[in-house]
Amino acid sequence: VNRGQVITSRRNPQVVAAAGLHQVSERRERRLTLLEGPHLVGEAIAAGIRLEVVFALADTEIPPGSRLPLDIVSVTEPVLERIAGTRSPSGPIAVMEIPPSLPLANQPTVVLCGVADPGNSGTLIRTAAAFGYQVAVTPGSADPWAPKVLRAAAGGHFRTQISRIDQSPAEAIARAGLTGIALVVHGGDALDLPFDGLPALLVGSEAHGLDAECFAAASHRVTIPMAAGESLNAAVSGAIAMYHYR
Amino acid sequence: VNRGQVITSRRNPQVVAAAGLHQVSERRERRLTLLEGPHLVGEAIAAGIRLEVVFALADTEIPPGSRLPLDIVSVTEPVLERIAGTRSPSGPIAVMEIPPSLPLANQPTVVLCGVADPGNSGTLIRTAAAFGYQVAVTPGSADPWAPKVLRAAAGGHFRTQISRIDQSPAEAIARAGLTGIALVVHGGDALDLPFDGLPALLVGSEAHGLDAECFAAASHRVTIPMAAGESLNAAVSGAIAMYHYR
Repeated sequence: VNRGQVITSRRNPQVVAAAGLHQVSERRERRLTLLEGPHLVGEAIAAGIRLEVVFALADTEIPPGSRLPLDIVSVTEPVLERIAGTRSPSGPIAVMEIPPSLPLANQPTVVLCGVADPGNSGTLIRTAAAFGYQVAVTPGSADPWAPKVLRAAAGGHFRTQISRIDQSPAEAIARAGLTGIALVVHGGDALDLPFDGLPALLVGSEAHGLDAECFAAASHRVTIPMAAGESLNAAVSGAIAMYHYR
Repeated sequence: VNRGQVITSRRNPQVVAAAGLHQVSERRERRLTLLEGPHLVGEAIAAGIRLEVVFALADTEIPPGSRLPLDIVSVTEPVLERIAGTRSPSGPIAVMEIPPSLPLANQPTVVLCGVADPGNSGTLIRTAAAFGYQVAVTPGSADPWAPKVLRAAAGGHFRTQISRIDQSPAEAIARAGLTGIALVVHGGDALDLPFDGLPALLVGSEAHGLDAECFAAASHRVTIPMAAGESLNAAVSGAIAMYHYR
Protein backbone atom coordinates (compact mmCIF):
# COMPACT_ATOMS: atom_id res chain seq x y z
CA VAL A 1 0.00 0.00 0.00
CA ASN A 2 1.53 3.21 -1.23
CA ARG A 3 0.51 6.20 0.91
CA GLY A 4 3.84 8.02 0.84
CA GLN A 5 3.15 11.00 -1.37
CA VAL A 6 0.11 13.25 -1.74
CA ILE A 7 -0.93 14.36 -5.23
CA THR A 8 -1.75 18.06 -5.07
CA SER A 9 -1.95 18.94 -8.78
CA ARG A 10 -5.18 18.65 -10.76
CA ARG A 11 -2.97 18.24 -13.85
CA ASN A 12 -1.13 15.21 -12.57
CA PRO A 13 -1.22 12.68 -15.44
CA GLN A 14 -2.77 9.95 -13.26
CA VAL A 15 -5.51 12.39 -12.18
CA VAL A 16 -6.23 13.54 -15.72
CA ALA A 17 -6.39 9.93 -16.91
CA ALA A 18 -8.87 9.00 -14.17
CA ALA A 19 -11.07 12.07 -14.76
CA GLY A 20 -11.21 11.14 -18.46
CA LEU A 21 -13.19 8.03 -17.54
CA HIS A 22 -16.36 10.12 -17.24
CA GLN A 23 -16.39 9.93 -21.05
CA VAL A 24 -17.90 6.83 -22.57
CA SER A 25 -15.33 6.77 -25.38
CA GLU A 26 -12.45 6.62 -22.90
CA ARG A 27 -14.15 3.89 -20.89
CA ARG A 28 -14.64 1.79 -24.03
CA GLU A 29 -11.12 2.24 -25.27
CA ARG A 30 -9.30 1.71 -21.98
CA ARG A 31 -11.77 -0.83 -20.53
CA LEU A 32 -11.72 1.06 -17.23
CA THR A 33 -14.33 2.91 -15.18
CA LEU A 34 -14.71 4.82 -11.89
CA LEU A 35 -16.30 3.71 -8.63
CA GLU A 36 -17.28 6.58 -6.39
CA GLY A 37 -17.87 6.50 -2.63
CA PRO A 38 -16.98 4.25 0.27
CA HIS A 39 -19.99 1.99 -0.16
CA LEU A 40 -19.37 1.09 -3.79
CA VAL A 41 -15.60 0.76 -3.38
CA GLY A 42 -16.20 -1.48 -0.36
CA GLU A 43 -18.65 -3.64 -2.32
CA ALA A 44 -16.12 -4.06 -5.13
CA ILE A 45 -13.37 -5.08 -2.74
CA ALA A 46 -15.72 -7.51 -0.96
CA ALA A 47 -16.63 -9.04 -4.35
CA GLY A 48 -12.96 -9.50 -5.21
CA ILE A 49 -13.07 -7.08 -8.15
CA ARG A 50 -9.67 -6.03 -9.46
CA LEU A 51 -9.11 -2.30 -8.85
CA GLU A 52 -6.27 -0.48 -10.58
CA VAL A 53 -5.92 2.25 -8.00
CA VAL A 54 -7.89 4.03 -5.28
CA PHE A 55 -7.70 7.80 -4.81
CA ALA A 56 -8.55 9.08 -1.32
CA LEU A 57 -8.03 12.14 0.84
CA ALA A 58 -4.84 11.90 2.88
CA ASP A 59 -6.81 11.58 6.12
CA THR A 60 -9.25 8.88 4.93
CA GLU A 61 -9.08 5.97 7.30
CA ILE A 62 -8.91 2.54 5.76
CA PRO A 63 -11.24 0.32 7.77
CA PRO A 64 -9.25 -2.30 9.67
CA GLY A 65 -9.65 -5.74 8.21
CA SER A 66 -10.29 -4.59 4.65
CA ARG A 67 -8.24 -6.59 2.21
CA LEU A 68 -6.69 -3.98 -0.03
CA PRO A 69 -4.45 -5.62 -2.62
CA LEU A 70 -3.92 -2.29 -4.35
CA ASP A 71 -2.37 1.12 -4.35
CA ILE A 72 -4.08 3.88 -2.38
CA VAL A 73 -3.02 7.25 -3.70
CA SER A 74 -3.52 10.19 -1.34
CA VAL A 75 -4.88 13.34 -2.96
CA THR A 76 -6.09 16.77 -1.87
CA GLU A 77 -9.78 17.73 -2.00
CA PRO A 78 -9.51 19.77 -5.23
CA VAL A 79 -7.84 16.80 -6.89
CA LEU A 80 -10.56 14.41 -5.69
CA GLU A 81 -13.19 16.84 -7.02
CA ARG A 82 -11.45 16.86 -10.39
CA ILE A 83 -11.58 13.06 -10.56
CA ALA A 84 -15.17 12.85 -9.32
CA GLY A 85 -16.43 15.64 -11.54
CA THR A 86 -18.62 16.81 -8.62
CA ARG A 87 -18.22 19.06 -5.56
CA SER A 88 -17.36 17.46 -2.20
CA PRO A 89 -17.18 13.85 -3.39
CA SER A 90 -17.93 11.40 -0.61
CA GLY A 91 -14.74 9.48 -0.05
CA PRO A 92 -12.53 7.27 -2.14
CA ILE A 93 -12.74 6.88 -5.90
CA ALA A 94 -11.42 3.72 -7.49
CA VAL A 95 -10.40 2.94 -11.05
CA MET A 96 -11.79 -0.47 -11.96
CA GLU A 97 -11.24 -2.79 -14.90
CA ILE A 98 -14.44 -3.39 -16.89
CA PRO A 99 -14.92 -7.15 -17.13
CA PRO A 100 -15.19 -8.58 -20.64
CA SER A 101 -18.69 -8.89 -22.14
CA LEU A 102 -19.50 -12.61 -22.43
CA PRO A 103 -22.18 -14.14 -24.66
CA LEU A 104 -25.56 -14.60 -22.97
CA ALA A 105 -25.97 -17.83 -21.00
CA ASN A 106 -29.17 -19.89 -20.81
CA GLN A 107 -30.32 -18.14 -17.66
CA PRO A 108 -33.15 -15.68 -16.82
CA THR A 109 -32.26 -12.40 -18.50
CA VAL A 110 -33.33 -8.78 -18.53
CA VAL A 111 -32.52 -6.90 -21.74
CA LEU A 112 -32.12 -3.12 -21.51
CA CYS A 113 -33.41 -2.04 -24.95
CA GLY A 114 -32.74 1.68 -25.08
CA VAL A 115 -33.08 2.42 -21.35
CA ALA A 116 -31.29 5.76 -21.44
CA ASP A 117 -31.68 7.02 -17.87
CA PRO A 118 -28.65 6.02 -15.77
CA GLY A 119 -30.75 5.77 -12.59
CA ASN A 120 -33.20 3.37 -14.23
CA SER A 121 -30.37 1.31 -15.78
CA GLY A 122 -28.62 1.01 -12.44
CA THR A 123 -31.83 0.10 -10.62
CA LEU A 124 -32.55 -2.62 -13.21
CA ILE A 125 -29.02 -4.04 -12.76
CA ARG A 126 -29.44 -4.01 -8.96
CA THR A 127 -32.80 -5.77 -9.24
CA ALA A 128 -31.40 -8.31 -11.72
CA ALA A 129 -28.67 -9.22 -9.21
CA ALA A 130 -31.25 -9.57 -6.44
CA PHE A 131 -33.43 -11.95 -8.47
CA GLY A 132 -30.69 -13.93 -10.21
CA TYR A 133 -31.02 -12.48 -13.71
CA GLN A 134 -28.17 -11.76 -16.11
CA VAL A 135 -28.28 -8.39 -17.89
CA ALA A 136 -27.99 -7.65 -21.60
CA VAL A 137 -27.62 -4.10 -22.90
CA THR A 138 -28.32 -2.83 -26.42
CA PRO A 139 -26.27 0.04 -27.94
CA GLY A 140 -29.09 2.60 -27.55
CA SER A 141 -29.06 2.23 -23.75
CA ALA A 142 -26.98 4.08 -21.17
CA ASP A 143 -23.46 2.68 -20.87
CA PRO A 144 -23.85 0.10 -18.06
CA TRP A 145 -20.35 0.97 -16.83
CA ALA A 146 -21.01 4.72 -16.50
CA PRO A 147 -20.24 5.93 -12.94
CA LYS A 148 -23.87 7.04 -12.43
CA VAL A 149 -25.18 3.62 -13.43
CA LEU A 150 -22.72 1.93 -11.07
CA ARG A 151 -23.89 4.20 -8.23
CA ALA A 152 -27.59 3.45 -8.81
CA ALA A 153 -26.88 -0.30 -8.98
CA ALA A 154 -25.28 -0.24 -5.50
CA GLY A 155 -22.93 -3.14 -6.23
CA GLY A 156 -25.24 -5.19 -8.48
CA HIS A 157 -22.59 -5.05 -11.22
CA PHE A 158 -20.26 -7.18 -9.11
CA ARG A 159 -22.75 -9.99 -8.63
CA THR A 160 -24.30 -10.54 -12.02
CA GLN A 161 -23.16 -10.94 -15.62
CA ILE A 162 -23.50 -7.88 -17.90
CA SER A 163 -23.33 -8.49 -21.65
CA ARG A 164 -23.36 -5.97 -24.44
CA ILE A 165 -25.51 -6.94 -27.42
CA ASP A 166 -23.83 -5.43 -30.44
CA GLN A 167 -25.44 -7.62 -33.10
CA SER A 168 -29.22 -8.22 -33.28
CA PRO A 169 -31.00 -8.84 -29.96
CA ALA A 170 -33.12 -11.52 -31.65
CA GLU A 171 -29.98 -13.48 -32.60
CA ALA A 172 -28.37 -13.14 -29.17
CA ILE A 173 -31.56 -14.32 -27.45
CA ALA A 174 -32.07 -17.23 -29.84
CA ARG A 175 -28.45 -18.35 -29.56
CA ALA A 176 -28.79 -18.52 -25.77
CA GLY A 177 -31.98 -20.57 -26.12
CA LEU A 178 -34.08 -17.93 -24.34
CA THR A 179 -37.67 -16.82 -24.99
CA GLY A 180 -37.97 -13.10 -25.75
CA ILE A 181 -40.80 -11.42 -23.81
CA ALA A 182 -41.43 -7.74 -24.52
CA LEU A 183 -42.88 -5.52 -21.81
CA VAL A 184 -45.36 -3.18 -23.46
CA VAL A 185 -47.47 -0.43 -21.88
CA HIS A 186 -50.69 -1.36 -23.69
CA GLY A 187 -52.28 -4.35 -25.35
CA GLY A 188 -49.97 -7.18 -24.30
CA ASP A 189 -50.99 -10.49 -22.77
CA ALA A 190 -51.22 -11.03 -19.00
CA LEU A 191 -47.90 -11.76 -17.28
CA ASP A 192 -48.92 -15.32 -16.51
CA LEU A 193 -49.18 -16.43 -20.14
CA PRO A 194 -47.49 -19.80 -20.60
CA PHE A 195 -44.18 -20.02 -22.46
CA ASP A 196 -41.36 -22.52 -22.91
CA GLY A 197 -37.84 -22.08 -21.58
CA LEU A 198 -36.34 -19.19 -19.67
CA PRO A 199 -37.37 -15.57 -20.23
CA ALA A 200 -35.37 -12.75 -21.76
CA LEU A 201 -37.44 -9.74 -20.62
CA LEU A 202 -37.13 -6.81 -23.03
CA VAL A 203 -37.47 -3.42 -21.28
CA GLY A 204 -37.66 -0.34 -23.50
CA SER A 205 -37.07 3.37 -23.09
CA GLU A 206 -39.64 5.36 -21.13
CA ALA A 207 -39.98 7.94 -23.85
CA HIS A 208 -40.14 5.72 -26.91
CA GLY A 209 -40.82 2.15 -25.74
CA LEU A 210 -39.16 -0.72 -27.58
CA ASP A 211 -37.54 -0.18 -30.97
CA ALA A 212 -38.20 -2.42 -33.97
CA GLU A 213 -35.11 -4.60 -33.35
CA CYS A 214 -36.18 -5.35 -29.80
CA PHE A 215 -39.75 -6.10 -30.85
CA ALA A 216 -38.37 -8.53 -33.41
CA ALA A 217 -36.61 -10.37 -30.59
CA ALA A 218 -39.85 -11.01 -28.71
CA SER A 219 -42.08 -14.02 -29.25
CA HIS A 220 -44.55 -12.68 -26.64
CA ARG A 221 -45.74 -9.27 -25.50
CA VAL A 222 -46.98 -8.76 -21.95
CA THR A 223 -48.52 -5.80 -20.14
CA ILE A 224 -48.59 -5.17 -16.39
CA PRO A 225 -52.26 -4.43 -15.56
CA MET A 226 -52.81 -0.91 -14.23
CA ALA A 227 -55.45 1.80 -13.92
CA ALA A 228 -56.49 3.53 -17.15
CA GLY A 229 -54.21 6.36 -18.24
CA GLU A 230 -51.42 5.40 -15.84
CA SER A 231 -47.86 4.33 -16.56
CA LEU A 232 -44.93 2.88 -14.65
CA ASN A 233 -41.30 3.90 -14.47
CA ALA A 234 -39.15 1.63 -16.71
CA ALA A 235 -37.14 0.32 -13.74
CA VAL A 236 -40.35 -0.46 -11.85
CA SER A 237 -41.99 -2.36 -14.69
CA GLY A 238 -38.78 -4.33 -15.33
CA ALA A 239 -38.56 -5.14 -11.61
CA ILE A 240 -42.16 -6.33 -11.39
CA ALA A 241 -41.66 -8.59 -14.41
CA MET A 242 -38.39 -9.98 -13.01
CA TYR A 243 -40.13 -10.66 -9.71
CA HIS A 244 -43.04 -12.32 -11.48
CA TYR A 245 -40.85 -14.68 -13.58
CA ARG A 246 -38.10 -15.29 -11.00
CA VAL B 1 -55.29 34.63 -20.85
CA ASN B 2 -52.92 37.42 -20.01
CA ARG B 3 -49.93 37.49 -22.35
CA GLY B 4 -49.61 41.22 -22.66
CA GLN B 5 -46.46 41.99 -20.73
CA VAL B 6 -43.15 40.17 -20.37
CA ILE B 7 -41.49 40.01 -16.95
CA THR B 8 -37.79 40.70 -17.43
CA SER B 9 -36.68 41.24 -13.81
CA ARG B 10 -35.51 38.39 -11.61
CA ARG B 11 -36.56 40.54 -8.66
CA ASN B 12 -40.17 40.88 -9.74
CA PRO B 13 -42.27 40.07 -6.64
CA GLN B 14 -44.28 37.37 -8.42
CA VAL B 15 -41.03 35.74 -9.56
CA VAL B 16 -39.46 35.91 -6.10
CA ALA B 17 -42.61 34.45 -4.55
CA ALA B 18 -42.64 31.53 -7.01
CA ALA B 19 -38.91 30.80 -6.57
CA GLY B 20 -39.47 30.68 -2.81
CA LEU B 21 -41.56 27.55 -3.30
CA HIS B 22 -38.40 25.45 -3.58
CA GLN B 23 -38.31 25.73 0.22
CA VAL B 24 -40.44 23.26 2.13
CA SER B 25 -41.36 25.87 4.78
CA GLU B 26 -42.82 28.20 2.13
CA ARG B 27 -44.75 25.36 0.51
CA ARG B 28 -46.25 24.36 3.85
CA GLU B 29 -47.18 27.89 4.81
CA ARG B 30 -48.61 29.01 1.51
CA ARG B 31 -50.02 25.60 0.47
CA LEU B 32 -48.55 26.09 -3.00
CA THR B 33 -45.93 24.23 -5.04
CA LEU B 34 -44.25 24.31 -8.47
CA LEU B 35 -44.83 22.11 -11.49
CA GLU B 36 -41.97 22.13 -13.96
CA GLY B 37 -42.04 21.20 -17.63
CA PRO B 38 -44.64 20.84 -20.34
CA HIS B 39 -45.46 17.23 -19.51
CA LEU B 40 -46.30 17.79 -15.85
CA VAL B 41 -48.15 21.06 -16.46
CA GLY B 42 -50.14 19.32 -19.20
CA GLU B 43 -51.01 16.42 -16.88
CA ALA B 44 -52.22 18.84 -14.22
CA ILE B 45 -54.41 20.71 -16.67
CA ALA B 46 -55.80 17.43 -18.03
CA ALA B 47 -56.62 16.33 -14.47
CA GLY B 48 -58.47 19.56 -13.81
CA ILE B 49 -56.02 20.73 -11.13
CA ARG B 50 -56.33 24.38 -10.18
CA LEU B 51 -53.18 26.31 -11.19
CA GLU B 52 -52.58 29.80 -9.81
CA VAL B 53 -50.38 30.94 -12.65
CA VAL B 54 -48.13 29.56 -15.41
CA PHE B 55 -44.81 31.19 -16.27
CA ALA B 56 -43.53 30.56 -19.80
CA LEU B 57 -41.05 32.03 -22.27
CA ALA B 58 -42.66 34.64 -24.47
CA ASP B 59 -42.38 32.41 -27.54
CA THR B 60 -43.80 29.23 -25.94
CA GLU B 61 -46.65 28.02 -28.05
CA ILE B 62 -49.78 27.01 -26.22
CA PRO B 63 -51.01 23.83 -27.88
CA PRO B 64 -54.33 24.45 -29.63
CA GLY B 65 -57.20 22.83 -27.81
CA SER B 66 -55.66 23.01 -24.34
CA ARG B 67 -58.13 24.36 -21.86
CA LEU B 68 -56.23 27.00 -19.95
CA PRO B 69 -58.47 28.64 -17.36
CA LEU B 70 -55.55 30.59 -15.99
CA ASP B 71 -53.06 33.36 -16.43
CA ILE B 72 -49.98 32.70 -18.53
CA VAL B 73 -47.24 35.13 -17.62
CA SER B 74 -44.52 35.60 -20.22
CA VAL B 75 -40.99 35.77 -18.83
CA THR B 76 -37.44 35.91 -20.18
CA GLU B 77 -35.07 32.94 -19.91
CA PRO B 78 -33.11 34.32 -16.92
CA VAL B 79 -36.39 34.84 -15.07
CA LEU B 80 -37.56 31.29 -15.86
CA GLU B 81 -34.19 29.98 -14.62
CA ARG B 82 -34.66 31.91 -11.38
CA ILE B 83 -38.07 30.31 -10.82
CA ALA B 84 -36.89 26.82 -11.80
CA GLY B 85 -33.68 27.01 -9.80
CA THR B 86 -31.94 25.18 -12.67
CA ARG B 87 -30.24 26.12 -15.94
CA SER B 88 -32.26 25.94 -19.16
CA PRO B 89 -35.56 24.80 -17.64
CA SER B 90 -37.67 22.87 -20.13
CA GLY B 91 -40.72 24.95 -20.69
CA PRO B 92 -43.50 26.31 -18.55
CA ILE B 93 -43.54 26.35 -14.76
CA ALA B 94 -46.87 26.45 -12.95
CA VAL B 95 -47.76 27.42 -9.40
CA MET B 96 -50.25 24.89 -8.09
CA GLU B 97 -52.40 24.74 -4.96
CA ILE B 98 -51.52 21.79 -2.75
CA PRO B 99 -54.75 19.88 -2.10
CA PRO B 100 -55.72 19.40 1.56
CA SER B 101 -54.49 16.25 3.30
CA LEU B 102 -57.53 14.04 4.00
CA PRO B 103 -57.71 11.21 6.54
CA LEU B 104 -56.87 7.78 5.13
CA ALA B 105 -59.76 5.94 3.52
CA ASN B 106 -60.38 2.19 3.73
CA GLN B 107 -58.51 1.53 0.52
CA PRO B 108 -55.18 -0.16 -0.37
CA THR B 109 -52.44 2.13 0.90
CA VAL B 110 -48.71 2.60 0.65
CA VAL B 111 -47.12 4.39 3.61
CA LEU B 112 -43.84 6.24 3.00
CA CYS B 113 -42.11 5.83 6.38
CA GLY B 114 -38.97 7.92 6.10
CA VAL B 115 -38.40 7.55 2.35
CA ALA B 116 -36.07 10.52 1.98
CA ASP B 117 -34.98 10.30 -1.65
CA PRO B 118 -37.26 12.46 -3.84
CA GLY B 119 -36.84 10.15 -6.83
CA ASN B 120 -37.94 7.12 -4.82
CA SER B 121 -40.86 9.03 -3.26
CA GLY B 122 -42.06 10.17 -6.66
CA THR B 123 -41.71 6.71 -8.16
CA LEU B 124 -43.74 5.24 -5.28
CA ILE B 125 -46.49 7.83 -5.82
CA ARG B 126 -46.53 7.09 -9.57
CA THR B 127 -46.75 3.35 -8.90
CA ALA B 128 -49.49 3.87 -6.28
CA ALA B 129 -51.58 5.75 -8.84
CA ALA B 130 -51.03 2.99 -11.40
CA PHE B 131 -52.20 0.24 -9.02
CA GLY B 132 -55.01 2.13 -7.27
CA TYR B 133 -53.31 2.76 -3.91
CA GLN B 134 -53.67 5.88 -1.80
CA VAL B 135 -50.43 7.30 -0.34
CA ALA B 136 -49.63 8.21 3.26
CA VAL B 137 -46.46 10.08 4.17
CA THR B 138 -44.79 10.31 7.60
CA PRO B 139 -42.90 13.46 8.68
CA GLY B 140 -39.45 11.85 8.24
CA SER B 141 -40.05 11.38 4.49
CA ALA B 142 -39.36 13.75 1.60
CA ASP B 143 -42.10 16.37 1.22
CA PRO B 144 -44.46 14.70 -1.29
CA TRP B 145 -45.15 18.13 -2.82
CA ALA B 146 -41.49 18.98 -3.49
CA PRO B 147 -40.92 19.81 -7.19
CA LYS B 148 -38.48 16.90 -7.57
CA VAL B 149 -41.01 14.44 -6.16
CA LEU B 150 -43.68 15.79 -8.49
CA ARG B 151 -41.34 15.35 -11.44
CA ALA B 152 -40.49 11.73 -10.56
CA ALA B 153 -44.18 10.91 -10.07
CA ALA B 154 -44.99 12.03 -13.64
CA GLY B 155 -48.55 13.10 -12.77
CA GLY B 156 -49.34 10.40 -10.19
CA HIS B 157 -50.12 13.15 -7.65
CA PHE B 158 -53.13 14.24 -9.69
CA ARG B 159 -54.72 10.80 -9.73
CA THR B 160 -54.38 9.48 -6.20
CA GLN B 161 -54.97 10.71 -2.66
CA ILE B 162 -51.88 11.84 -0.70
CA SER B 163 -52.30 12.13 3.09
CA ARG B 164 -49.81 13.39 5.63
CA ILE B 165 -49.63 11.31 8.81
CA ASP B 166 -48.73 13.75 11.56
CA GLN B 167 -49.89 11.66 14.52
CA SER B 168 -48.91 8.01 14.98
CA PRO B 169 -48.98 5.82 11.86
CA ALA B 170 -50.46 2.97 13.93
CA GLU B 171 -53.46 5.14 14.86
CA ALA B 172 -54.02 6.42 11.33
CA ILE B 173 -53.91 2.88 9.92
CA ALA B 174 -56.20 1.48 12.62
CA ARG B 175 -58.71 4.31 12.23
CA ALA B 176 -58.96 3.57 8.49
CA GLY B 177 -59.53 -0.13 9.25
CA LEU B 178 -56.38 -1.16 7.35
CA THR B 179 -53.87 -3.93 8.12
CA GLY B 180 -50.31 -2.65 8.52
CA ILE B 181 -47.76 -4.75 6.62
CA ALA B 182 -44.11 -3.80 7.01
CA LEU B 183 -41.64 -4.49 4.18
CA VAL B 184 -38.39 -5.67 5.76
CA VAL B 185 -35.13 -6.65 4.06
CA HIS B 186 -34.57 -9.78 6.17
CA GLY B 187 -36.55 -12.27 8.19
CA GLY B 188 -40.14 -11.37 7.28
CA ASP B 189 -42.83 -13.79 6.16
CA ALA B 190 -43.49 -14.58 2.49
CA LEU B 191 -45.59 -12.01 0.64
CA ASP B 192 -48.48 -14.43 0.29
CA LEU B 193 -49.18 -14.75 4.02
CA PRO B 194 -52.90 -14.52 4.69
CA PHE B 195 -54.32 -11.41 6.35
CA ASP B 196 -57.70 -9.78 6.85
CA GLY B 197 -58.81 -6.52 5.29
CA LEU B 198 -56.91 -4.20 2.98
CA PRO B 199 -53.16 -3.63 3.26
CA ALA B 200 -51.28 -0.53 4.37
CA LEU B 201 -47.78 -1.33 3.08
CA LEU B 202 -45.08 0.37 5.16
CA VAL B 203 -41.96 1.21 3.12
CA GLY B 204 -38.92 2.49 5.04
CA SER B 205 -35.81 4.46 4.23
CA GLU B 206 -33.09 2.70 2.25
CA ALA B 207 -30.42 3.68 4.72
CA HIS B 208 -32.19 2.96 8.00
CA GLY B 209 -35.22 0.79 7.23
CA LEU B 210 -38.42 1.36 9.21
CA ASP B 211 -38.37 3.38 12.43
CA ALA B 212 -39.97 2.19 15.67
CA GLU B 213 -43.24 4.08 15.08
CA CYS B 214 -43.71 2.47 11.69
CA PHE B 215 -42.87 -1.00 13.03
CA ALA B 216 -45.50 -0.45 15.73
CA ALA B 217 -48.07 0.16 12.98
CA ALA B 218 -47.45 -3.25 11.38
CA SER B 219 -49.26 -6.42 12.35
CA HIS B 220 -47.20 -8.38 9.79
CA ARG B 221 -43.68 -8.24 8.40
CA VAL B 222 -42.94 -9.51 4.92
CA THR B 223 -39.73 -9.91 2.92
CA ILE B 224 -39.36 -10.12 -0.84
CA PRO B 225 -37.26 -13.24 -1.52
CA MET B 226 -33.90 -12.47 -3.14
CA ALA B 227 -30.39 -13.84 -3.54
CA ALA B 228 -28.17 -13.77 -0.44
CA GLY B 229 -26.46 -10.46 0.23
CA GLU B 230 -28.61 -8.53 -2.24
CA SER B 231 -30.99 -5.65 -1.65
CA LEU B 232 -33.61 -3.74 -3.61
CA ASN B 233 -34.17 -0.04 -4.12
CA ALA B 234 -36.98 1.23 -1.81
CA ALA B 235 -39.17 2.27 -4.75
CA VAL B 236 -38.70 -1.15 -6.35
CA SER B 237 -39.59 -3.14 -3.24
CA GLY B 238 -42.64 -0.94 -2.61
CA ALA B 239 -43.70 -1.41 -6.24
CA ILE B 240 -43.34 -5.20 -6.11
CA ALA B 241 -45.42 -5.34 -2.92
CA MET B 242 -48.11 -3.04 -4.38
CA TYR B 243 -48.22 -5.23 -7.49
CA HIS B 244 -48.45 -8.37 -5.37
CA TYR B 245 -51.34 -7.10 -3.21
CA ARG B 246 -53.18 -5.06 -5.89
